[in-house]
Amino acid sequence: MAENKVRILKGFRDVLPGEMLAREDLIRKIKAVYESYGFSPLATPAIEPIELVMGSGEEANKQIYTFTDREGYEVGLIYELTASLARVIAENRDLPTPFKRYQIQPVWRFDKPDPGRYREFIQFDIDIVGSKSMLADAEIICTMHEALKVLEMEPFVIRYSSRKILNALIDFAGLPPEMGHPVFRTLDKLDKQGIEAVLLELGPGRVDQSGDKIEGLKLGDEAIARIERFLKIEQDDRSMALKSLRELFGDLPSAAEGITELDEVSRYLEVMRVPDSRARIDVSIARGLDYYTGPVYEAILLDESAGRIGSVMGGGRYDNTVGKYSGEQIPATGASIGVDRLLAAMIQMGKAQTKPSTSDVIITVMDRNRIAEYIGIAREIRNAGYNAELYVGNAKQIKKQLKYADRQEIPVAVIAGSDEFERGEVSIKDLRKIKEEDVDISDRQEWVEVKVGQVTIPRKELLATIKKMLGR
Amino acid sequence: MAENKVRILKGFRDVLPGEMLAREDLIRKIKAVYESYGFSPLATPAIEPIELVMGSGEEANKQIYTFTDREGYEVGLIYELTASLARVIAENRDLPTPFKRYQIQPVWRFDKPDPGRYREFIQFDIDIVGSKSMLADAEIICTMHEALKVLEMEPFVIRYSSRKILNALIDFAGLPPEMGHPVFRTLDKLDKQGIEAVLLELGPGRVDQSGDKIEGLKLGDEAIARIERFLKIEQDDRSMALKSLRELFGDLPSAAEGITELDEVSRYLEVMRVPDSRARIDVSIARGLDYYTGPVYEAILLDESAGRIGSVMGGGRYDNTVGKYSGEQIPATGASIGVDRLLAAMIQMGKAQTKPSTSDVIITVMDRNRIAEYIGIAREIRNAGYNAELYVGNAKQIKKQLKYADRQEIPVAVIAGSDEFERGEVSIKDLRKIKEEDVDISDRQEWVEVKVGQVTIPRKELLATIKKMLGR
Repeated sequence: MAENKVRILKGFRDVLPGEMLAREDLIRKIKAVYESYGFSPLATPAIEPIELVMGSGEEANKQIYTFTDREGYEVGLIYELTASLARVIAENRDLPTPFKRYQIQPVWRFDKPDPGRYREFIQFDIDIVGSKSMLADAEIICTMHEALKVLEMEPFVIRYSSRKILNALIDFAGLPPEMGHPVFRTLDKLDKQGIEAVLLELGPGRVDQSGDKIEGLKLGDEAIARIERFLKIEQDDRSMALKSLRELFGDLPSAAEGITELDEVSRYLEVMRVPDSRARIDVSIARGLDYYTGPVYEAILLDESAGRIGSVMGGGRYDNTVGKYSGEQIPATGASIGVDRLLAAMIQMGKAQTKPSTSDVIITVMDRNRIAEYIGIAREIRNAGYNAELYVGNAKQIKKQLKYADRQEIPVAVIAGSDEFERGEVSIKDLRKIKEEDVDISDRQEWVEVKVGQVTIPRKELLATIKKMLGR
Repeated sequence: MAENKVRILKGFRDVLPGEMLAREDLIRKIKAVYESYGFSPLATPAIEPIELVMGSGEEANKQIYTFTDREGYEVGLIYELTASLARVIAENRDLPTPFKRYQIQPVWRFDKPDPGRYREFIQFDIDIVGSKSMLADAEIICTMHEALKVLEMEPFVIRYSSRKILNALIDFAGLPPEMGHPVFRTLDKLDKQGIEAVLLELGPGRVDQSGDKIEGLKLGDEAIARIERFLKIEQDDRSMALKSLRELFGDLPSAAEGITELDEVSRYLEVMRVPDSRARIDVSIARGLDYYTGPVYEAILLDESAGRIGSVMGGGRYDNTVGKYSGEQIPATGASIGVDRLLAAMIQMGKAQTKPSTSDVIITVMDRNRIAEYIGIAREIRNAGYNAELYVGNAKQIKKQLKYADRQEIPVAVIAGSDEFERGEVSIKDLRKIKEEDVDISDRQEWVEVKVGQVTIPRKELLATIKKMLGR
């Protein structure tokens, strides 16, 4: 056969079994948390009308995969899941509300490929549509907290604020509302650049490390001083943050609603037993620009080894988006999980296994005439609740079969050849010991021997030995 | 807000929570079967180079979504999963073999939309790559059998044959090999049209029910007589089918390999305890044309109510496909499950629930000042292992909240207002009874009352009552 060199596209990747099993485990655990709070799954198409996929702003539009289908319709691959959710709400007016749904699907962005940054990735969204209550926002933060706890991602912190606080800041700084976006975009750099750089960018501009000039917003001194005061307020815990905000914004009618929101969310989190150390007010988080209308929140991993991962979950309230296709205002709040980022962090932190197989036991095939016995042994082990893989490959040598088992990280092997069957025995081998102790696999001295008849499987002894080896 | 009428594309659909939960349950059960036999998951991109997606034959190529990406590359959405599997094998030469993988992903076909036929649908493939043994084919059939049993889809039957038998038939009928494809394409109609129609189409042609003329293949009488003999061989059980084949094809060297294959697969199935009644030889099944090189198999539901569903799983051995991108022959065998078809059948047969929520209990909110108590009650129920949903919507009236619970088919409600809390009580209501007995929900006579303090949650009584109501 001639080799036909077709390769995967740039910016895409295959997820091989080891990572897939870890990803599925992560998803299964988070789903269980969400379902325990009453969220249900939804699926929408990958392809949507171009008007729908093009709704996420100018920057996003440059990254959307669009094309003309075979009937001449302009369509696109989804860029995120919220626009489709809004369409579902519009086309299914009789859905009960609140509509609490989670959704796990790939999205596509024609982004510059980077290590760990792909053009297709899984988005895992959770949203509550049709509730204007801060209880909904608190519940989203609470499930984020619980999901990260279930995944054992401590230490982490969820930071929350409200877009209304940032809007009040513009007022407080004496700036016109249209200065909101450029100021927020600059504040978004706080985490990466630090406060000094941000203050310079609000003012005259600065020169960055590579010598490039970054244009400043050229705000007046008083405006910058007020923004600095805002960024430096004491917010060590929720009540202190609220107190600081009241002191700073006390006279400002535009700030009242935002402070009330944060107060409510904080009180709900208190009774939800989400501790201050794991979910705290941070008034500097902006979380994007156009979209949010109320509380915003994001989860950051604090483990040293996950240092460069940054935010793994984030979201907020967006009361003006879902109603877009329904012609009415429909309140909504929700978060998105970066599944691949979170998984990468878990693997880095040693919190996720990437074993390529779930097989507990491999049944090797030494004597093809004894296949009935091998199949019978596999069935018995499977019936006892273990994953039992019969070796179905081409290799006849036991050594090659065990090498396969080793590559697959299968912990236990059942081995029996003509000799063993003649003697009425099968051997059960703990393969992890081979690895650890580097024992020659032809040395069967240390093997656990279990008596068998020719055809009858020694169920009890077999299973007892496997149970002992697997420790479950 | 002005209504912006963007609708879902023709040929696509949303999967709402009720059906999604049923689909996830189905997938979870089948995955567990496959993992118990040593299969692991794989994921590949939705977008692949055009050379890869265009490999499935002329008919397929007409249905492929293709476009030029923003860097000028010709790409396409995947039409099926096997081509990508072949690419993965070529790009990861060090994968252990046999490579036993399952894969669950959407594929896209620009097909004529029909009820129940969509342009995007989930494919669930299972394949063993790198084994030439008939044991691999038998194992695939065995897992299909077990999956259908786990899903309680009895009665069903898996029919299997070998492409080599059909090739021998062409030889037996005295036809040149190039007549294979048109003859097989005609035989594929057996299930739907019956033997008389098929024989006419092999000969002079026929006029169908709507009066259209169907061109015949114009084979000679002797060739048709031989094909008829083949189609009518006795194949009531495996050994009879093999005997009939040996009698019919005994003198034909080209038939020997196919008969040996079927004999081997049958013997393996025997020891795998896949009964004859559930997996039988049917020499007439053709299963497509170009692809298969050895055993072929398909599962048919026999339940009356699933009558029009037809084949829900199917596949076969394809030893010349996976090696396409590796430049060497790599044997492979595997099956594809039509997830949406199978799910539709299960729903029709009443074997799948389509409840829109997994919530076991709803905690209604009557008095917003008591939110700490409601949250506490929900937490206690969740900690006991139940899914407990706090009502977070806008409705203040208990009636509307219970209507929501009813729409969501949540079986149990915990209800407490200011009055109840004053009296130190909460009410636990079996909502299914409301439905069945049509009791006015304002009549609380029949409600189970559980004493509570003002703040302390009556954990034991609460959970005991819920456990009793849910029966678990």
